[in-house]
Amino acid sequence: MENLSRLCIHTVTTKPWGIEEAAREYAQAGVRGISVWRETLAGRNIVQTGNMLRDAGLTIVSHVRGGFFPAMSAGERQAAIDDNLRMIDETAALGAPLMVLVCGAHPGLALEEARRQIQEGIAAILPHAQACGVRLGIEPLHPMYADSRSAINTLAQANDMAEALASDYLGVVYDVYHLWWDPDLESETGRCAAGGNLLAFHVCDWKTPTEDLLLDRGLMGEGCINLRQIRGWVETAGYGGFVEVEIFSKKYWAMDQKAFLDLIIAAYRSNV
Amino acid sequence: MENLSRLCIHTVTTKPWGIEEAAREYAQAGVRGISVWRETLAGRNIVQTGNMLRDAGLTIVSHVRGGFFPAMSAGERQAAIDDNLRMIDETAALGAPLMVLVCGAHPGLALEEARRQIQEGIAAILPHAQACGVRLGIEPLHPMYADSRSAINTLAQANDMAEALASDYLGVVYDVYHLWWDPDLESETGRCAAGGNLLAFHVCDWKTPTEDLLLDRGLMGEGCINLRQIRGWVETAGYGGFVEVEIFSKKYWAMDQKAFLDLIIAAYRSNV
Repeated sequence: MENLSRLCIHTVTTKPWGIEEAAREYAQAGVRGISVWRETLAGRNIVQTGNMLRDAGLTIVSHVRGGFFPAMSAGERQAAIDDNLRMIDETAALGAPLMVLVCGAHPGLALEEARRQIQEGIAAILPHAQACGVRLGIEPLHPMYADSRSAINTLAQANDMAEALASDYLGVVYDVYHLWWDPDLESETGRCAAGGNLLAFHVCDWKTPTEDLLLDRGLMGEGCINLRQIRGWVETAGYGGFVEVEIFSKKYWAMDQKAFLDLIIAAYRSNV
Repeated sequence: MENLSRLCIHTVTTKPWGIEEAAREYAQAGVRGISVWRETLAGRNIVQTGNMLRDAGLTIVSHVRGGFFPAMSAGERQAAIDDNLRMIDETAALGAPLMVLVCGAHPGLALEEARRQIQEGIAAILPHAQACGVRLGIEPLHPMYADSRSAINTLAQANDMAEALASDYLGVVYDVYHLWWDPDLESETGRCAAGGNLLAFHVCDWKTPTEDLLLDRGLMGEGCINLRQIRGWVETAGYGGFVEVEIFSKKYWAMDQKAFLDLIIAAYRSNV
């Protein structure tokens, strides 16, 4: 997309930058949205940081990432819920409309049990999210993260859970990196949007070879994901919100981040 | 399982051993089945190697691995079909009843097109497989291999394709490493067996963390896969064939392979 008005970048994408530098550089480059990783706020006044971002001309798209509900003991599960409640407060203080949930998994727990605990955890924090005017977004993660990061691994599962908990304050965060391989993606995309649950759209690419399970994501156009086709499905279904660039990459983090930001914008223009 | 009568090992699991040494060591340790990787036969007379394995008291369970049908040009696709036809001949010469298919994918091809080419490729070789008395087994691969190894990533997709091509000489190879995360696994396992398509059962484990996308599989019990539950589904569905240990691991290949074989047998006894 030549026009940058829907371009959002996740602070983790340019991890070496502090949030002040990210805000300045994004805004100067014409980026309009920012998704703020929680770690980026450490040691900052959150209300003032939100104001700083808006003063820079940026829209705060989401606060990333809560969740991680499943655990081996009731005490740990309660601690996760408490931490998510605090993060909802922080999200409201920041002025972000959406908090992204990486739902969690534990290698010692059966997936069915992890999913039960996830649903229980979301149900426990949903009233507070609603009271704070913060929406929660379930992000299904690629099946290669089912051991320890999320037991929600397809868009169908995220749709199921969002529909089961049926709330205007709960929906789905859609990331092409996690979902591109799914043979049911087109139909589940329609279902997600039709239910009012398609809250966010994340892009990057899948490289061949991928050398690290977590930190080797590619720039849009660098890999095999059919981004145009998937964006078509998402937009046909009615989504018109921000397109968020979320890339974890040891290779790109090692670069000069201004040069990397130029690459992101060029890739967005040519390949999204 | 205490009893080793259903234990089969893939030659790639003990990659440092030549097939003669593998046969000797497996048989001496009480292993009853062997699945032969094609590379292991390089430079051997295949008929004599099959006889050598049977003389050692081993059942040849499968010949691994054909497939890799999708390609960017018609010439390359025909070359893949020709190579699969040769491998069917080799499988018959070896005296193996089953040839495993890793179906293929290409980062430059849309998944839908790759799947179409896979179905076309299998259809092209199926008559020769039938003429040779060799069954073909579609092995669905984990979604993390959808870029370059297989566009068939769930048991449902493998069932769909086996049912579409409906032949007594085509079925599915079921590997827990690829399938364990799937929320539909129990029902699709029943469907697979009910259709007469459950031809083989592979085991290993998924480690946390997994440090390499290809070569960091774990021994049974070392990871998060609920092997007992999945074996229960498979056997309830009617499968009673070999349980095949297929582990690719730089770590285990670096070990003394006799000591590794002892670990495999202990893990099979305790955790399968």
